[in-house]
Amino acid sequence: MRVNGVPMRAIWRDGARVAFIDQTRLPHRIAVVHADSVTLMAQAIASMQVRGAPLIGAAAAFGVALGAQRDASDEGLRAAVDALAATRPTAVNLQWALRQMQTRLTPLPVAERAAAAWVAAQQIADDDVATNAAIGQHGLELIRGLQPRSSRLNLLTHCNAGWLATVDGGTALAPVYAALDAGLDIHVWVDETRPRNQGAALTAWELGQHGVPHTVIADNAGGHLMQAGRVDAVIVGADRIAANGDVANKIGTYLKALAAHDCGIPFWVAAPVSTLDPLIADGVAGIPIETRHADEVHWLSGVDTTGRKRRVRITPEGSSALNPAFDVTPARLVSAIITESGAVPANREGVVSAIVGKGQRARANRDL
Amino acid sequence: MRVNGVPMRAIWRDGARVAFIDQTRLPHRIAVVHADSVTLMAQAIASMQVRGAPLIGAAAAFGVALGAQRDASDEGLRAAVDALAATRPTAVNLQWALRQMQTRLTPLPVAERAAAAWVAAQQIADDDVATNAAIGQHGLELIRGLQPRSSRLNLLTHCNAGWLATVDGGTALAPVYAALDAGLDIHVWVDETRPRNQGAALTAWELGQHGVPHTVIADNAGGHLMQAGRVDAVIVGADRIAANGDVANKIGTYLKALAAHDCGIPFWVAAPVSTLDPLIADGVAGIPIETRHADEVHWLSGVDTTGRKRRVRITPEGSSALNPAFDVTPARLVSAIITESGAVPANREGVVSAIVGKGQRARANRDL
Repeated sequence: MRVNGVPMRAIWRDGARVAFIDQTRLPHRIAVVHADSVTLMAQAIASMQVRGAPLIGAAAAFGVALGAQRDASDEGLRAAVDALAATRPTAVNLQWALRQMQTRLTPLPVAERAAAAWVAAQQIADDDVATNAAIGQHGLELIRGLQPRSSRLNLLTHCNAGWLATVDGGTALAPVYAALDAGLDIHVWVDETRPRNQGAALTAWELGQHGVPHTVIADNAGGHLMQAGRVDAVIVGADRIAANGDVANKIGTYLKALAAHDCGIPFWVAAPVSTLDPLIADGVAGIPIETRHADEVHWLSGVDTTGRKRRVRITPEGSSALNPAFDVTPARLVSAIITESGAVPANREGVVSAIVGKGQRARANRDL
Repeated sequence: MRVNGVPMRAIWRDGARVAFIDQTRLPHRIAVVHADSVTLMAQAIASMQVRGAPLIGAAAAFGVALGAQRDASDEGLRAAVDALAATRPTAVNLQWALRQMQTRLTPLPVAERAAAAWVAAQQIADDDVATNAAIGQHGLELIRGLQPRSSRLNLLTHCNAGWLATVDGGTALAPVYAALDAGLDIHVWVDETRPRNQGAALTAWELGQHGVPHTVIADNAGGHLMQAGRVDAVIVGADRIAANGDVANKIGTYLKALAAHDCGIPFWVAAPVSTLDPLIADGVAGIPIETRHADEVHWLSGVDTTGRKRRVRITPEGSSALNPAFDVTPARLVSAIITESGAVPANREGVVSAIVGKGQRARANRDL
């Protein structure tokens, strides 16, 4: 997508290093970081310099390439994979990308692994871009089917599942960008998404850079806007989707799904098939939820009137805080899961059909 | 309640002036402001130096006393009432207190009005304290009826309906303080309550000062905690309750009510009878919602590591924001309304019985 009018990806190979936008500096500064080791890549994922389930997958794949470049032995690969796997427990794409890399590299002679790792990582990154383009088109069809409550279409999104959460194109925002390209009059309500404010910092920024009309709201406001008829559909991403269609996504997603259901508004989850985790039968019962540091609740970052970055504490000294990073939205609240295979219902049949559909297309592509 | 171990009210008369805690400075500084004019009192309400529906009522009453002290003519009183009425459109207590003052003062000779205004305002303040004590006892009965899901009782609250939102004692937190006094092992999840963070700044502070175990959470986290069985009941205040039991309260309340309903957890609203507005038949359709300045979303206040107060901007320049301050929770999601007349169901019969009950007690007191 565009940054200051120039096309850019969220992560890319730069010679023997991996380059990415440091998302902890946005929206106030655009900083590109270069990583040349597994350790730096793992730190970038753990500290959320790169975040978003699909982008984490690509970042982990590039991380394995950095590792293979230094030590491509079985032991070296395993150490790289273990270090990267430990960074974010909820994102299934991370584990998926690491498995892909292992499957591709382990059969090869050690001397060939580094080059193959770069090829495989680049392939994962490029596949993500193609996947998101397909999600955008399938989502656009759903958007075209909406009966807008006012003169323009109003979508609401939570957290950032835009191009910054992917290599490029976005998941939840892919249909928004597709709608913009199709000339639809669209406006996005952006949940600020406490505690880390990915909505206020990242979604607002990327929508603004790309020229999409949007308005930031407190996470508390969405229910009222839905009740007042000011939202036509809710669209979010996902970190993991269980076999029964339950969706793990950024903390607070469940609350918006409840409000959409209560107000009769479609609630869509846009995610690549790699986010589907058929090994977890029941998402509410079975998806592990990452708890992050309490300081993310106590302290907030922003810029002062001079543009200088500052952290401020908003809670009293002596008060404790808890910071669960994700919640699980039961499938019964999800109107559709939009994958690159198409929009499917949030149930066992839908999840299976999305996975089968992807497999069929992959086989068809191989047969061409 | 106690501040640094010393009993304190949120507002009190200090000679010819009105003194109150400046709640915009909490939790990082305890500052007492003195107001000697209607204008200053109206500014204090509008800028939320004093806030919370019951406290706004008392503050408005004291504001009328300040006005009557300067100009007790019919015109002077009307000007004072108009200035105070314009400050916060959603809080019905404000209008209620102003009506009380007008009813008491208008029949009197002008020369007697100033002294009578101080007496009437003090009466409204003292009545609020007695009201909250009764709410505390009625709420305690409900708390005693809970089946705790773990070894301690976990309540969740939104915004601040503690003693800082009242003259003293609190509404939603009155049962919590009563439970603490009764020796129950109780813990409170405190929604930070964006955009103004009354939970993180005020509720956490007053609970900490009074020794109540509590944990601050992002507004997004409550649904997950309820789903995980870590909340036994939700208790909130109200700014206005319609004849059908619909509840206007701080933005985001509706989302928590939906989650409590979805998880089978009691959702209680604690509010004085003065919050009931039988003139509004349908709360969702009829209660006007105040929109506050977008800068409350863009900018956040806190202290830096040196304890210095700072404001930081969290959104990109160029992104707009919307800031609805309240939402309306449909009565069907409310388990009980806890008033000084007792806990009543959130429906027409309950609202009427609470109002009738208060009238009966008032008459009984007069007959003694």
